[in-house]
Amino acid sequence: MIRTLTVDQARQSVLQRRLLDDAEAPEAALQALREATGRDVHTATEGVAHILADVRARGDEAVRFYSRALDGAELGPLEVPQSALEAAYMRLDRALRAALEASAERIYRFHERQAQAEAGWLVEEGDSRLGQLVRPLERVGIYAPGGQALYPSSVLMAAVPAQVAGVREIIVISPPSRARLSEEGEHEVAVADVVLAAARIGGAHRVFQVGGAQGIAALAYGTETVPQVDKILGPGGLFTVLAMRQLFGVTGIAGLPGPTETLLIADDSANPALVAADLLAQAEHDVLASALLLTPSRALAARVAAEVTEQLARLPRRAIIEGSLERGSAIVLTGSLDEAMALANEYAPEHLCLLTESPWALLGQVQHAGGVFVGESACEALGDYIVGPSHIMPTSRTARFNSPVNVRDFQKIISVFGVGDATLHATGRDAIRIAEAEGLQGHAEAIRRRLDKKE
Amino acid sequence: MIRTLTVDQARQSVLQRRLLDDAEAPEAALQALREATGRDVHTATEGVAHILADVRARGDEAVRFYSRALDGAELGPLEVPQSALEAAYMRLDRALRAALEASAERIYRFHERQAQAEAGWLVEEGDSRLGQLVRPLERVGIYAPGGQALYPSSVLMAAVPAQVAGVREIIVISPPSRARLSEEGEHEVAVADVVLAAARIGGAHRVFQVGGAQGIAALAYGTETVPQVDKILGPGGLFTVLAMRQLFGVTGIAGLPGPTETLLIADDSANPALVAADLLAQAEHDVLASALLLTPSRALAARVAAEVTEQLARLPRRAIIEGSLERGSAIVLTGSLDEAMALANEYAPEHLCLLTESPWALLGQVQHAGGVFVGESACEALGDYIVGPSHIMPTSRTARFNSPVNVRDFQKIISVFGVGDATLHATGRDAIRIAEAEGLQGHAEAIRRRLDKKE
Repeated sequence: MIRTLTVDQARQSVLQRRLLDDAEAPEAALQALREATGRDVHTATEGVAHILADVRARGDEAVRFYSRALDGAELGPLEVPQSALEAAYMRLDRALRAALEASAERIYRFHERQAQAEAGWLVEEGDSRLGQLVRPLERVGIYAPGGQALYPSSVLMAAVPAQVAGVREIIVISPPSRARLSEEGEHEVAVADVVLAAARIGGAHRVFQVGGAQGIAALAYGTETVPQVDKILGPGGLFTVLAMRQLFGVTGIAGLPGPTETLLIADDSANPALVAADLLAQAEHDVLASALLLTPSRALAARVAAEVTEQLARLPRRAIIEGSLERGSAIVLTGSLDEAMALANEYAPEHLCLLTESPWALLGQVQHAGGVFVGESACEALGDYIVGPSHIMPTSRTARFNSPVNVRDFQKIISVFGVGDATLHATGRDAIRIAEAEGLQGHAEAIRRRLDKKE
Repeated sequence: MIRTLTVDQARQSVLQRRLLDDAEAPEAALQALREATGRDVHTATEGVAHILADVRARGDEAVRFYSRALDGAELGPLEVPQSALEAAYMRLDRALRAALEASAERIYRFHERQAQAEAGWLVEEGDSRLGQLVRPLERVGIYAPGGQALYPSSVLMAAVPAQVAGVREIIVISPPSRARLSEEGEHEVAVADVVLAAARIGGAHRVFQVGGAQGIAALAYGTETVPQVDKILGPGGLFTVLAMRQLFGVTGIAGLPGPTETLLIADDSANPALVAADLLAQAEHDVLASALLLTPSRALAARVAAEVTEQLARLPRRAIIEGSLERGSAIVLTGSLDEAMALANEYAPEHLCLLTESPWALLGQVQHAGGVFVGESACEALGDYIVGPSHIMPTSRTARFNSPVNVRDFQKIISVFGVGDATLHATGRDAIRIAEAEGLQGHAEAIRRRLDKKE
């Protein structure tokens, strides 16, 4: 059962944005942090800060300690041997392996276009050469969640663009599971096959079985066995995201992943069964996921609501979907398509799906979204797996300023100041004037000495 | 007097990197925070967290409160009127104004090339259209420090690339000064003319006279008068940088500026007087600034050391320079130029200057730096003012993963998934297979319904 709201009602409820600081940690999570850290922490932020400091100080020993305390896994080696990656790859269902490889191939091709278009430049201006070198990051860390939620697709969606960018060492970390550890006793490998196989297919170089805040800390600071990386990305739970936030600046952090969101804009031309299926696909991620339909059509709204009820009955993740429909999901009746577009830009959704008669005509109006799915065949679920652009996109309104994972995330720019004599002479006096206005005589002097020498 | 060190000595001292968390706040700063917040805070991070929460809750009232408590300025309107910007511009020394305008013009031209090269793309593949829309951020905030250190050049170096990117509203904030307030009583304007004029020249749309952690919080959350921005950037003091770190994710944060650094690599062909002048220009910024020369030439090292002593005596900021020379600055003797380049990449300096016989031949080896200055005429101080690339560059080793301020900072990407029927049919089965492996039947169903409908 999905609600139908007016714009005003939606503004008061499903279109409201919450900040990470407003998310209250569940008492069970706080209790786990108290037990693991042995401190009477009052917030998850505090508990995570303690874990980070401890990993910085004690390295692997602390990583093992929190893996035991929080994941229940007593680990031997932290790194998964290459032979285990190969074995997981070989064991994987052949059709699934082919599907993952087809997905990796399309992701590669998409991002290769970006890399070719944005490869840096160097231009000659008289005797000067100015420009931007684009260089890959040396080493990046990708977080692959464990537990119930195994998303090999997310590993591909992060690792493949990194590979295209030319990252020398792509590291995947994933929390160990005690259950898996006992199954795989001899190898002491506690990460699922499908994650290991995806790491191999995606071009990851090394896999470590560490997760949570301790895993993020190990990547940011480096330990005896886990190398320090230049950037961390990927989805994750509350502790992981809080750790990323606190480590911003110690290492690069691509973004702080929050609950996923899809906003569909549809008109009378849309197929209600497909719109309903898209809403349900979104809602099945998580009770915190938001599935929103904005439409000016009352007729469509009614038919989609009926379809949602009907299709929902047949889906296995019904309880999760119902949770999502009760919280952040709804059908919102707008006065027009233009109003729907304006609301969408204000909300800045992770996924924006245009199911209207002339969807391409709306593209020019899209200002804030992670990805835009244009037309009926551009199914959001397909984009989650195989279209090519990364499915790791900005959530919680951060699409106003962040981008989907892309090649730029794995590069940095170095400005090239190749100033020749002519440019020095043409600009030196103005530079000296500004330096003197800023009270920096040493700066003025360094320029003046060159002018004097060459004049 | 500048020290000369071996590589091993340098690794133990000037080449060591410190993290923001290791920076101890001066007791005076802590005391100011205690008085302003009325709380017994133990760290600057704690005090800043309190200010941010207060501005989020109380808006302008809190901004005024901390401006009074920390800057000593009792403010009327927070916004500087457009007429005051215009008046400051007109009052400015004519030659300085022309110099700032020449600088803005060169910054504009440099970044325009990037914007043209990286304008997004959309490619047709059969019946699909895939690509990346590049969209400007709507509103950004630039921090211009106040007090003794007035850097109109930094305002240009941030505002002009934002203007090139197409940002609709560029906001500059700068801390008010009680001293200035009394001078300008009738306008109630408490920001220096040269900063206001630079804001106007750089294309800023609005200026607010708020600074510190409270100013950053006002930009991140928005208040009654200060609009919420999508990204904040610019240099700043300890409270400002701690505020930026804590607000990462609430808004975009371009980087956490630390003390400035220049690393010169020179050989026997270099002019010792110019190398010394460059070291002194760098050292005059701040006692925490690092000026490093890496050279395999003992002869050059000795001559540069002598020049430093001689030139230093004539510079007005001698006390600051001496502080910098005692702390993070030195001449380091390397075994070879290659070793110097390897150390430079390891250190990842903000500025890397190549003063060798064949400087362009070294460019290919540069992996980690904010900007590289190639050859004798490419004076770093010139780049601070007028060459074109932004002088706001990553410090404290973050050049490993961050870039100088550039057009990308003011844009975000929106992925376009324009999937047609042919691509849907070619990829749908593989996507369903991965969705099922991830236990997401709703995703599989949304794709399957489309395949069934169209087959």
